[in-house]
Amino acid sequence: MPKGQDLATRDRLIRAASKLFLQRSYTAVGVNEICAAADAAKGSFYHFFPTKSDLAIAVIDWHADAMWVLHDKHEAAARGAAGRLRAVTEVVAEVQGKLHRSFGRMVGCPLGNLGVELATTDDPAGAHVAGVLAQWEQRIARHCHDLAEAGLLRRGVDPDELATQILATMQGMILLAKVGAGRPEPVAEAMRRVIDGAVATRRAA
Amino acid sequence: MPKGQDLATRDRLIRAASKLFLQRSYTAVGVNEICAAADAAKGSFYHFFPTKSDLAIAVIDWHADAMWVLHDKHEAAARGAAGRLRAVTEVVAEVQGKLHRSFGRMVGCPLGNLGVELATTDDPAGAHVAGVLAQWEQRIARHCHDLAEAGLLRRGVDPDELATQILATMQGMILLAKVGAGRPEPVAEAMRRVIDGAVATRRAA
Repeated sequence: MPKGQDLATRDRLIRAASKLFLQRSYTAVGVNEICAAADAAKGSFYHFFPTKSDLAIAVIDWHADAMWVLHDKHEAAARGAAGRLRAVTEVVAEVQGKLHRSFGRMVGCPLGNLGVELATTDDPAGAHVAGVLAQWEQRIARHCHDLAEAGLLRRGVDPDELATQILATMQGMILLAKVGAGRPEPVAEAMRRVIDGAVATRRAA
Repeated sequence: MPKGQDLATRDRLIRAASKLFLQRSYTAVGVNEICAAADAAKGSFYHFFPTKSDLAIAVIDWHADAMWVLHDKHEAAARGAAGRLRAVTEVVAEVQGKLHRSFGRMVGCPLGNLGVELATTDDPAGAHVAGVLAQWEQRIARHCHDLAEAGLLRRGVDPDELATQILATMQGMILLAKVGAGRPEPVAEAMRRVIDGAVATRRAA
């Protein structure tokens, strides 16, 4: 594990890259530019990240770690399985709200952006971001299954399909808001409508 | 308007670029590579497209034109406002099925991909693809408004929000299927579930 000054440099490189990737794209940003933005020497970059893909993987993990922390926080504050499922809408509202304030516009989902850009390439960061998105879907699906077991999903609602639909609504709404220069609020609202349409208002008989 | 051999060269450049953008990304593909794939001289490229953005705009229009033709076809074959709304699911099933067969994998929505990649940049193709996606949303919204006027939407369903939700579900499902190496069928299925959840099964009183 890197320590002290090393940790600070590695962290600066990750934060600078994350910002530049969100402002443009992974492919559009070069190592020189990342080093300049992070105030780091190029030798230092390659010390931490043998390839640009390694940096992308670190950026993905950095976003994912922050997201799991937010999930833990909002799930811990939630009541019942429905509340824990709805926590995902609060995570997204918090992340997208913060990004919108920070960049002054919608810049997309850090994970979704990299997924779209890299999924068809042989860059190992593509498989890595796919793994994190699959983990996210599984985390949502666990709550959907809890609801199904408690008889709290409407008749005909499949818990795995519901989890996919929640994640797809999130990614699609973020994409449209990014492309259409929209706002973060409708993203969580649309996700809440999907959840409201699937969760029974009272315990099914 | 270009004619004869000129038209053939321009068309080859657009088709080659469209394929390369879907295989990797707009930024990752250079003009030289597009010319080689289209068997066109570089001078010829710049004759038709003064900048790479101009080519991207032509690629966007080429995809959009094909999509409007499919919409016309499926809407003409549909019965009633609900059928015309559901036509969008058939358009997406046809386009994504064709792309999946052609590339042997999910490559994303040609418009959504470019939107995600270019929305935060100052490339004019970003604003162009945003305009086409907005047109698409308006086309879907027209059918939602027809349903609302006929009393065929469930209570509380807003026609504009429904249109956004249908387009977001499409884009999000395509994104997840691309990233997760999935299949095209679940995309239209998820869109149908959104529509089924919003359209009243019989005329509301």
